[in-house]
Amino acid sequence: MEPYILYYWPTIQGRGEFVRLALEEAAVPYEDVARGRQGMPQIQAALDADKEIFVPFAPPVLRAGDQLIGQTTNILQFLGARHGLAPRAQDGRLWCNQLQLTIADIVAEAHDSHHPVSMNLYYEDQKKEAKARAKDFRNERIPKFLGYFERVLENNPRPGGFAVGARLTYVDLSLFQLIAGLRYAFPKTMARLEPQWPRLIALHDTVAARPNIAAYLKSKRRIPFNEDGIFRRYPELDG
Amino acid sequence: MEPYILYYWPTIQGRGEFVRLALEEAAVPYEDVARGRQGMPQIQAALDADKEIFVPFAPPVLRAGDQLIGQTTNILQFLGARHGLAPRAQDGRLWCNQLQLTIADIVAEAHDSHHPVSMNLYYEDQKKEAKARAKDFRNERIPKFLGYFERVLENNPRPGGFAVGARLTYVDLSLFQLIAGLRYAFPKTMARLEPQWPRLIALHDTVAARPNIAAYLKSKRRIPFNEDGIFRRYPELDG
Repeated sequence: MEPYILYYWPTIQGRGEFVRLALEEAAVPYEDVARGRQGMPQIQAALDADKEIFVPFAPPVLRAGDQLIGQTTNILQFLGARHGLAPRAQDGRLWCNQLQLTIADIVAEAHDSHHPVSMNLYYEDQKKEAKARAKDFRNERIPKFLGYFERVLENNPRPGGFAVGARLTYVDLSLFQLIAGLRYAFPKTMARLEPQWPRLIALHDTVAARPNIAAYLKSKRRIPFNEDGIFRRYPELDG
Repeated sequence: MEPYILYYWPTIQGRGEFVRLALEEAAVPYEDVARGRQGMPQIQAALDADKEIFVPFAPPVLRAGDQLIGQTTNILQFLGARHGLAPRAQDGRLWCNQLQLTIADIVAEAHDSHHPVSMNLYYEDQKKEAKARAKDFRNERIPKFLGYFERVLENNPRPGGFAVGARLTYVDLSLFQLIAGLRYAFPKTMARLEPQWPRLIALHDTVAARPNIAAYLKSKRRIPFNEDGIFRRYPELDG
Protein backbone atom coordinates (compact mmCIF):
# COMPACT_ATOMS: atom_id res chain seq x y z
CA MET A 1 0.00 0.00 0.00
CA GLU A 2 1.23 3.49 -0.85
CA PRO A 3 1.48 5.80 2.15
CA TYR A 4 -1.52 8.01 2.72
CA ILE A 5 -1.11 11.69 2.03
CA LEU A 6 -2.75 14.07 4.46
CA TYR A 7 -3.48 17.60 3.31
CA TYR A 8 -3.93 19.94 6.22
CA TRP A 9 -2.68 23.32 7.41
CA PRO A 10 0.90 23.03 8.63
CA THR A 11 0.79 25.10 11.81
CA ILE A 12 -2.32 23.97 13.68
CA GLN A 13 -3.86 20.81 15.08
CA GLY A 14 -7.31 21.84 13.91
CA ARG A 15 -9.64 19.26 12.39
CA GLY A 16 -6.65 17.49 10.85
CA GLU A 17 -5.65 16.33 14.32
CA PHE A 18 -8.59 13.92 14.52
CA VAL A 19 -7.25 12.26 11.38
CA ARG A 20 -3.63 12.31 12.58
CA LEU A 21 -4.60 10.55 15.82
CA ALA A 22 -6.28 7.75 13.86
CA LEU A 23 -3.28 7.35 11.55
CA GLU A 24 -0.88 7.34 14.50
CA GLU A 25 -2.88 4.83 16.54
CA ALA A 26 -3.16 2.54 13.50
CA ALA A 27 0.59 3.01 12.88
CA VAL A 28 0.11 3.37 9.13
CA PRO A 29 2.59 5.38 7.05
CA TYR A 30 1.41 8.81 5.99
CA GLU A 31 2.89 11.97 4.66
CA ASP A 32 1.70 15.18 6.32
CA VAL A 33 2.20 17.08 3.12
CA ALA A 34 1.82 20.68 4.23
CA ARG A 35 4.56 20.25 6.78
CA GLY A 36 7.06 19.58 4.01
CA ARG A 37 8.89 22.25 2.05
CA GLN A 38 6.39 22.43 -0.82
CA GLY A 39 3.48 21.97 1.51
CA MET A 40 1.25 24.98 1.03
CA PRO A 41 1.39 24.99 -2.79
CA GLN A 42 0.51 21.30 -2.73
CA ILE A 43 -2.56 21.94 -0.55
CA GLN A 44 -3.67 24.75 -2.82
CA ALA A 45 -3.21 22.57 -5.89
CA ALA A 46 -5.38 19.84 -4.34
CA LEU A 47 -8.17 22.33 -3.58
CA ASP A 48 -7.95 24.00 -6.99
CA ALA A 49 -7.91 20.80 -9.03
CA ASP A 50 -10.50 21.87 -11.57
CA LYS A 51 -10.75 18.57 -13.32
CA GLU A 52 -10.99 16.51 -10.18
CA ILE A 53 -14.41 14.83 -9.81
CA PHE A 54 -14.05 14.41 -6.07
CA VAL A 55 -12.91 17.99 -5.45
CA PRO A 56 -12.76 18.79 -1.74
CA PHE A 57 -14.27 21.91 -0.18
CA ALA A 58 -11.61 22.34 2.50
CA PRO A 59 -8.84 20.49 4.34
CA PRO A 60 -8.41 18.01 5.90
CA VAL A 61 -8.23 15.83 2.80
CA LEU A 62 -6.73 12.36 2.64
CA ARG A 63 -5.30 10.81 -0.48
CA ALA A 64 -5.53 7.02 -0.38
CA GLY A 65 -4.16 5.72 -3.68
CA ASP A 66 -6.61 6.96 -6.32
CA GLN A 67 -9.14 8.20 -3.81
CA LEU A 68 -9.29 11.75 -2.52
CA ILE A 69 -11.44 11.89 0.62
CA GLY A 70 -12.60 15.06 2.36
CA GLN A 71 -14.53 15.95 5.53
CA THR A 72 -13.12 14.79 8.86
CA THR A 73 -15.90 12.40 9.85
CA ASN A 74 -15.87 10.89 6.36
CA ILE A 75 -12.11 10.31 6.49
CA LEU A 76 -12.45 8.71 9.92
CA GLN A 77 -15.21 6.45 8.69
CA PHE A 78 -12.92 5.29 5.88
CA LEU A 79 -9.88 4.80 8.12
CA GLY A 80 -11.90 3.21 10.91
CA ALA A 81 -13.24 0.50 8.62
CA ARG A 82 -9.87 -0.13 7.05
CA HIS A 83 -7.68 -0.25 10.15
CA GLY A 84 -9.78 -1.84 12.86
CA LEU A 85 -10.76 1.43 14.49
CA ALA A 86 -14.50 0.80 14.10
CA PRO A 87 -16.77 -2.19 14.66
CA ARG A 88 -17.47 -4.54 11.76
CA ALA A 89 -21.24 -4.62 12.09
CA GLN A 90 -23.25 -1.94 10.35
CA ASP A 91 -25.10 -0.80 13.47
CA GLY A 92 -21.79 -0.24 15.28
CA ARG A 93 -20.40 1.65 12.29
CA LEU A 94 -23.44 3.95 12.18
CA TRP A 95 -23.19 4.51 15.91
CA CYS A 96 -19.49 5.48 15.63
CA ASN A 97 -20.31 7.88 12.82
CA GLN A 98 -23.21 9.36 14.80
CA LEU A 99 -20.98 10.01 17.81
CA GLN A 100 -18.23 11.45 15.64
CA LEU A 101 -20.74 13.84 14.04
CA THR A 102 -21.78 14.99 17.50
CA ILE A 103 -18.11 15.58 18.37
CA ALA A 104 -17.81 17.58 15.13
CA ASP A 105 -20.76 19.70 16.29
CA ILE A 106 -19.11 20.72 19.56
CA VAL A 107 -15.78 21.27 17.77
CA ALA A 108 -17.51 23.70 15.39
CA GLU A 109 -19.06 25.47 18.38
CA ALA A 110 -15.66 25.65 20.11
CA HIS A 111 -14.37 27.42 17.02
CA ASP A 112 -17.30 29.80 16.94
CA SER A 113 -16.77 30.69 20.60
CA HIS A 114 -13.87 32.89 19.44
CA HIS A 115 -15.21 33.61 15.92
CA PRO A 116 -18.96 34.14 16.28
CA VAL A 117 -19.31 36.75 13.53
CA SER A 118 -16.93 35.73 10.75
CA MET A 119 -13.96 33.49 10.17
CA ASN A 120 -12.79 36.19 7.77
CA LEU A 121 -12.28 38.71 10.58
CA TYR A 122 -9.66 38.66 13.32
CA TYR A 123 -10.62 37.67 16.83
CA GLU A 124 -9.86 41.21 17.94
CA ASP A 125 -12.59 42.50 15.65
CA GLN A 126 -15.29 40.28 17.21
CA LYS A 127 -14.10 40.18 20.81
CA LYS A 128 -17.27 41.55 22.33
CA GLU A 129 -19.49 39.07 20.48
CA ALA A 130 -17.02 36.30 21.36
CA LYS A 131 -17.43 37.06 25.06
CA ALA A 132 -21.18 36.56 24.82
CA ARG A 133 -20.90 33.41 22.76
CA ALA A 134 -18.15 31.92 24.93
CA LYS A 135 -20.27 32.46 28.03
CA ASP A 136 -23.08 30.47 26.44
CA PHE A 137 -20.60 27.82 25.30
CA ARG A 138 -19.14 27.43 28.81
CA ASN A 139 -22.43 27.48 30.69
CA GLU A 140 -24.77 25.64 28.34
CA ARG A 141 -23.04 23.85 25.54
CA ILE A 142 -19.98 22.23 27.16
CA PRO A 143 -22.11 20.72 29.96
CA LYS A 144 -24.75 19.54 27.49
CA PHE A 145 -22.29 17.84 25.13
CA LEU A 146 -19.91 16.39 27.73
CA GLY A 147 -22.82 15.25 29.89
CA TYR A 148 -24.13 13.46 26.82
CA PHE A 149 -20.82 11.72 26.09
CA GLU A 150 -20.53 10.70 29.75
CA ARG A 151 -23.96 9.09 29.44
CA VAL A 152 -22.86 7.27 26.28
CA LEU A 153 -19.90 5.80 28.19
CA GLU A 154 -22.15 4.89 31.09
CA ASN A 155 -24.71 3.19 28.87
CA ASN A 156 -22.16 1.10 26.98
CA PRO A 157 -22.65 -2.38 28.47
CA ARG A 158 -19.28 -3.69 27.25
CA PRO A 159 -16.17 -3.50 29.45
CA GLY A 160 -13.11 -1.34 28.80
CA GLY A 161 -14.48 2.15 29.26
CA PHE A 162 -14.68 2.85 25.51
CA ALA A 163 -17.48 4.69 23.74
CA VAL A 164 -18.50 1.87 21.40
CA GLY A 165 -18.22 -1.81 22.22
CA ALA A 166 -15.26 -3.36 24.04
CA ARG A 167 -12.47 -2.05 21.82
CA LEU A 168 -10.93 1.29 20.99
CA THR A 169 -12.49 3.14 18.04
CA TYR A 170 -11.71 6.43 16.38
CA VAL A 171 -14.47 7.97 18.52
CA ASP A 172 -12.34 7.39 21.65
CA LEU A 173 -9.37 9.09 20.00
CA SER A 174 -11.57 12.05 19.14
CA LEU A 175 -13.01 12.28 22.64
CA PHE A 176 -9.43 12.40 23.95
CA GLN A 177 -8.71 15.29 21.57
CA LEU A 178 -11.91 17.08 22.55
CA ILE A 179 -11.05 16.93 26.27
CA ALA A 180 -7.45 17.99 25.60
CA GLY A 181 -8.62 20.91 23.48
CA LEU A 182 -11.25 22.12 25.93
CA ARG A 183 -8.72 21.92 28.77
CA TYR A 184 -6.32 24.03 26.73
CA ALA A 185 -8.89 26.65 25.76
CA PHE A 186 -10.95 26.78 28.96
CA PRO A 187 -8.66 25.66 31.82
CA LYS A 188 -10.68 27.29 34.61
CA THR A 189 -14.01 26.12 33.28
CA MET A 190 -12.80 22.58 32.79
CA ALA A 191 -11.11 22.38 36.20
CA ARG A 192 -14.42 23.35 37.73
CA LEU A 193 -16.68 21.12 35.65
CA GLU A 194 -14.77 18.00 34.74
CA PRO A 195 -15.21 16.08 38.02
CA GLN A 196 -18.80 15.59 36.76
CA TRP A 197 -17.54 13.41 33.93
CA PRO A 198 -15.26 10.78 35.47
CA ARG A 199 -15.70 8.26 32.64
CA LEU A 200 -14.74 10.78 30.00
CA ILE A 201 -11.64 11.83 31.91
CA ALA A 202 -10.65 8.20 32.47
CA LEU A 203 -11.07 7.58 28.75
CA HIS A 204 -8.88 10.60 27.98
CA ASP A 205 -6.17 9.12 30.20
CA THR A 206 -6.53 5.64 28.69
CA VAL A 207 -6.07 7.01 25.18
CA ALA A 208 -3.10 9.22 26.19
CA ALA A 209 -1.37 6.15 27.64
CA ARG A 210 -1.68 3.94 24.57
CA PRO A 211 1.84 3.32 23.27
CA ASN A 212 1.37 4.75 19.77
CA ILE A 213 -0.52 7.79 21.02
CA ALA A 214 1.92 8.42 23.89
CA ALA A 215 4.84 8.30 21.44
CA TYR A 216 3.02 10.63 19.05
CA LEU A 217 2.17 13.16 21.76
CA LYS A 218 5.85 13.34 22.73
CA SER A 219 7.02 13.69 19.12
CA LYS A 220 7.49 16.80 17.00
CA ARG A 221 4.65 15.58 14.81
CA ARG A 222 2.22 16.75 17.52
CA ILE A 223 1.86 20.48 16.90
CA PRO A 224 1.28 22.32 20.19
CA PHE A 225 -2.10 23.98 20.74
CA ASN A 226 -1.94 27.64 19.77
CA GLU A 227 -4.09 30.69 19.07
CA ASP A 228 -4.49 29.97 15.36
CA GLY A 229 -6.33 26.67 15.83
CA ILE A 230 -9.82 25.67 16.84
CA PHE A 231 -9.13 25.53 20.58
CA ARG A 232 -7.66 28.89 21.61
CA ARG A 233 -6.69 30.11 25.03
CA TYR A 234 -8.07 33.60 25.48
CA PRO A 235 -8.37 34.09 29.25
CA GLU A 236 -11.21 36.60 28.81
CA LEU A 237 -13.33 33.82 27.26
CA ASP A 238 -12.78 31.44 30.18
CA GLY A 239 -15.06 33.34 32.59
CA MET B 1 -40.74 -4.10 6.91
CA GLU B 2 -42.16 -2.03 9.76
CA PRO B 3 -42.66 1.62 8.87
CA TYR B 4 -39.83 3.92 9.89
CA ILE B 5 -40.49 6.29 12.72
CA LEU B 6 -39.08 9.80 12.36
CA TYR B 7 -38.58 11.86 15.49
CA TYR B 8 -38.38 15.54 14.70
CA TRP B 9 -39.89 18.81 15.87
CA PRO B 10 -43.48 19.07 14.65
CA THR B 11 -43.61 22.70 13.47
CA ILE B 12 -40.47 23.23 11.38
CA GLN B 13 -38.74 21.78 8.36
CA GLY B 14 -35.34 22.07 10.01
CA ARG B 15 -32.79 19.30 9.63
CA GLY B 16 -35.60 16.75 9.64
CA GLU B 17 -36.61 17.95 6.18
CA PHE B 18 -33.50 16.42 4.59
CA VAL B 19 -34.65 13.06 5.97
CA ARG B 20 -38.30 13.60 4.97
CA LEU B 21 -37.27 14.33 1.37
CA ALA B 22 -35.35 11.05 1.18
CA LEU B 23 -38.26 9.08 2.65
CA GLU B 24 -40.73 10.75 0.28
CA GLU B 25 -38.61 10.22 -2.83
CA ALA B 26 -38.08 6.56 -1.88
CA ALA B 27 -41.82 6.26 -1.19
CA VAL B 28 -41.29 4.21 1.95
CA PRO B 29 -43.84 4.28 4.76
CA TYR B 30 -42.88 6.38 7.77
CA GLU B 31 -44.55 7.89 10.76
CA ASP B 32 -43.65 11.49 11.51
CA VAL B 33 -44.21 10.91 15.18
CA ALA B 34 -44.09 14.43 16.57
CA ARG B 35 -46.89 15.50 14.27
CA GLY B 36 -49.25 13.03 15.92
CA ARG B 37 -51.22 13.68 19.08
CA GLN B 38 -48.66 12.24 21.49
CA GLY B 39 -45.77 13.57 19.47
CA MET B 40 -43.77 15.78 21.79
CA PRO B 41 -43.81 13.39 24.76
CA GLN B 42 -42.65 10.62 22.43
CA ILE B 43 -39.69 12.70 21.21
CA GLN B 44 -38.72 13.56 24.76
CA ALA B 45 -38.94 9.90 25.77
CA ALA B 46 -36.62 8.92 22.91
CA LEU B 47 -34.04 11.52 23.94
CA ASP B 48 -34.27 10.68 27.64
CA ALA B 49 -34.04 6.91 27.22
CA ASP B 50 -31.48 6.33 29.95
CA LYS B 51 -30.94 2.68 29.25
CA GLU B 52 -30.64 3.08 25.51
CA ILE B 53 -27.14 2.28 24.26
CA PHE B 54 -27.54 4.28 21.06
CA VAL B 55 -28.96 7.34 22.80
CA PRO B 56 -29.28 10.29 20.41
CA PHE B 57 -28.04 13.79 21.19
CA ALA B 58 -30.81 15.62 19.32
CA PRO B 59 -33.47 15.16 16.64
CA PRO B 60 -33.76 14.16 13.86
CA VAL B 61 -33.70 10.52 14.89
CA LEU B 62 -34.95 7.62 12.81
CA ARG B 63 -36.18 4.34 14.22
CA ALA B 64 -35.67 1.49 11.79
CA GLY B 65 -36.85 -1.69 13.50
CA ASP B 66 -34.44 -2.20 16.39
CA GLN B 67 -32.08 0.52 15.26
CA LEU B 68 -32.20 4.08 16.50
CA ILE B 69 -30.16 6.32 14.20
CA GLY B 70 -29.28 9.94 14.87
CA GLN B 71 -27.52 12.78 13.01
CA THR B 72 -28.91 13.87 9.66
CA THR B 73 -25.98 12.84 7.47
CA ASN B 74 -25.84 9.47 9.23
CA ILE B 75 -29.54 8.83 8.66
CA LEU B 76 -29.18 9.77 4.99
CA GLN B 77 -26.23 7.45 4.61
CA PHE B 78 -28.35 4.63 6.02
CA LEU B 79 -31.41 5.42 3.88
CA GLY B 80 -29.34 6.08 0.77
CA ALA B 81 -27.75 2.65 0.89
CA ARG B 82 -31.04 0.93 1.62
CA HIS B 83 -33.29 2.62 -0.91
CA GLY B 84 -31.15 3.23 -3.97
CA LEU B 85 -30.45 6.87 -3.16
CA ALA B 86 -26.66 6.40 -3.15
CA PRO B 87 -24.20 4.60 -5.41
CA ARG B 88 -23.25 1.01 -4.61
CA ALA B 89 -19.49 1.43 -4.83
CA GLN B 90 -17.63 2.56 -1.73
CA ASP B 91 -15.95 5.53 -3.40
CA GLY B 92 -19.32 6.86 -4.55
CA ARG B 93 -20.77 6.36 -1.08
CA LEU B 94 -17.92 8.28 0.53
CA TRP B 95 -18.32 11.06 -2.02
CA CYS B 96 -22.07 11.35 -1.29
CA ASN B 97 -21.34 11.50 2.41
CA GLN B 98 -18.61 14.11 1.88
CA LEU B 99 -20.96 16.35 -0.11
CA GLN B 100 -23.76 15.90 2.42
CA LEU B 101 -21.39 16.93 5.22
CA THR B 102 -20.53 20.06 3.27
CA ILE B 103 -24.24 20.80 2.87
CA ALA B 104 -24.59 20.30 6.64
CA ASP B 105 -21.84 22.88 7.13
CA ILE B 106 -23.64 25.61 5.20
CA VAL B 107 -26.95 24.67 6.84
CA ALA B 108 -25.35 25.19 10.27
CA GLU B 109 -24.01 28.55 9.09
CA ALA B 110 -27.45 29.52 7.77
CA HIS B 111 -28.80 28.86 11.26
CA ASP B 112 -26.04 30.87 12.90
CA SER B 113 -26.72 33.83 10.58
CA HIS B 114 -29.74 34.59 12.81
CA HIS B 115 -28.38 33.03 16.01
CA PRO B 116 -24.68 33.94 16.17
CA VAL B 117 -24.46 34.26 19.95
CA SER B 118 -26.67 31.57 21.42
CA MET B 119 -29.46 29.24 20.40
CA ASN B 120 -30.75 29.74 23.94
CA LEU B 121 -31.53 33.42 23.32
CA TYR B 122 -34.21 34.91 21.09
CA TYR B 123 -33.28 36.41 17.74
CA GLU B 124 -34.32 39.81 19.08
CA ASP B 125 -31.61 39.55 21.74
CA GLN B 126 -28.82 39.03 19.19
CA LYS B 127 -30.08 41.11 16.31
CA LYS B 128 -27.06 43.37 16.06
CA GLU B 129 -24.63 40.44 16.00
CA ALA B 130 -26.91 38.67 13.52
CA LYS B 131 -26.65 41.60 11.13
CA ALA B 132 -22.87 41.34 11.10
CA ARG B 133 -22.87 37.58 10.72
CA ALA B 134 -25.55 37.59 8.02
CA LYS B 135 -23.56 40.11 6.01
CA ASP B 136 -20.57 37.77 6.06
CA PHE B 137 -22.83 34.82 5.24
CA ARG B 138 -24.33 36.61 2.21
CA ASN B 139 -21.10 38.07 0.87
CA GLU B 140 -18.58 35.33 1.61
CA ARG B 141 -20.11 32.06 2.62
CA ILE B 142 -23.08 31.61 0.27
CA PRO B 143 -20.92 32.35 -2.81
CA LYS B 144 -18.14 30.08 -1.56
CA PHE B 145 -20.40 27.10 -0.85
CA LEU B 146 -22.74 27.43 -3.84
CA GLY B 147 -19.81 28.11 -6.17
CA TYR B 148 -18.29 24.90 -4.86
CA PHE B 149 -21.45 22.85 -5.47
CA GLU B 150 -21.76 24.35 -8.97
CA ARG B 151 -18.21 23.14 -9.66
CA VAL B 152 -19.09 19.68 -8.36
CA LEU B 153 -21.99 19.52 -10.84
CA GLU B 154 -19.74 20.80 -13.62
CA ASN B 155 -17.02 18.26 -12.87
CA ASN B 156 -19.37 15.27 -12.79
CA PRO B 157 -18.66 13.55 -16.11
CA ARG B 158 -21.89 11.52 -16.08
CA PRO B 159 -25.07 12.82 -17.76
CA GLY B 160 -28.26 13.88 -15.97
CA GLY B 161 -27.14 16.96 -14.12
CA PHE B 162 -26.91 15.17 -10.75
CA ALA B 163 -24.20 15.68 -8.15
CA VAL B 164 -22.93 12.11 -8.06
CA GLY B 165 -22.95 9.74 -11.03
CA ALA B 166 -25.84 9.48 -13.46
CA ARG B 167 -28.67 8.88 -10.99
CA LEU B 168 -30.43 10.86 -8.31
CA THR B 169 -28.93 10.55 -4.81
CA TYR B 170 -29.90 12.00 -1.46
CA VAL B 171 -27.32 14.73 -2.12
CA ASP B 172 -29.48 16.09 -4.96
CA LEU B 173 -32.53 16.15 -2.68
CA SER B 174 -30.52 18.09 -0.10
CA LEU B 175 -29.18 20.56 -2.66
CA PHE B 176 -32.80 21.22 -3.68
CA GLN B 177 -33.68 21.92 -0.05
CA LEU B 178 -30.64 24.15 0.40
CA ILE B 179 -31.57 26.30 -2.60
CA ALA B 180 -35.22 26.44 -1.50
CA GLY B 181 -34.20 27.46 2.02
CA LEU B 182 -31.75 30.12 0.91
CA ARG B 183 -34.33 31.57 -1.48
CA TYR B 184 -36.82 31.76 1.36
CA ALA B 185 -34.42 33.36 3.83
CA PHE B 186 -32.46 35.62 1.48
CA PRO B 187 -34.72 36.38 -1.51
CA LYS B 188 -32.90 39.54 -2.61
CA THR B 189 -29.47 38.03 -2.23
CA MET B 190 -30.40 34.88 -4.09
CA ALA B 191 -32.15 36.75 -6.93
CA ARG B 192 -28.95 38.71 -7.40
CA LEU B 193 -26.49 35.83 -7.11
CA GLU B 194 -28.15 32.72 -8.41
CA PRO B 195 -27.63 33.31 -12.16
CA GLN B 196 -24.00 32.41 -11.39
CA TRP B 197 -25.03 28.85 -10.59
CA PRO B 198 -27.16 27.61 -13.52
CA ARG B 199 -26.45 23.91 -12.89
CA LEU B 200 -27.54 24.13 -9.27
CA ILE B 201 -30.75 25.93 -10.17
CA ALA B 202 -31.49 23.39 -12.91
CA LEU B 203 -30.94 20.59 -10.39
CA HIS B 204 -33.32 22.30 -7.95
CA ASP B 205 -35.98 22.35 -10.68
CA THR B 206 -35.33 18.73 -11.68
CA VAL B 207 -35.80 17.57 -8.09
CA ALA B 208 -38.93 19.68 -7.57
CA ALA B 209 -40.48 18.09 -10.67
CA ARG B 210 -39.93 14.48 -9.66
CA PRO B 211 -43.37 12.94 -9.13
CA ASN B 212 -42.90 11.87 -5.50
CA ILE B 213 -41.28 15.15 -4.52
CA ALA B 214 -43.82 17.27 -6.41
CA ALA B 215 -46.66 15.42 -4.65
CA TYR B 216 -44.97 15.86 -1.29
CA LEU B 217 -44.37 19.58 -1.79
CA LYS B 218 -48.07 20.07 -2.53
CA SER B 219 -49.18 17.99 0.47
CA LYS B 220 -49.81 19.03 4.07
CA ARG B 221 -46.84 16.92 5.07
CA ARG B 222 -44.57 19.70 3.76
CA ILE B 223 -44.46 22.24 6.59
CA PRO B 224 -44.11 25.77 5.19
CA PHE B 225 -40.88 27.64 5.90
CA ASN B 226 -41.28 29.87 8.94
CA GLU B 227 -39.35 31.95 11.46
CA ASP B 228 -38.78 29.08 13.90
CA GLY B 229 -36.72 26.97 11.52
CA ILE B 230 -33.19 27.08 10.18
CA PHE B 231 -33.97 29.26 7.16
CA ARG B 232 -35.71 32.40 8.44
CA ARG B 233 -36.85 35.43 6.51
CA TYR B 234 -35.73 38.50 8.39
CA PRO B 235 -35.57 41.28 5.77
CA GLU B 236 -32.91 43.17 7.75
CA LEU B 237 -30.55 40.18 7.28
CA ASP B 238 -30.99 40.12 3.51
CA GLY B 239 -28.91 43.26 2.88
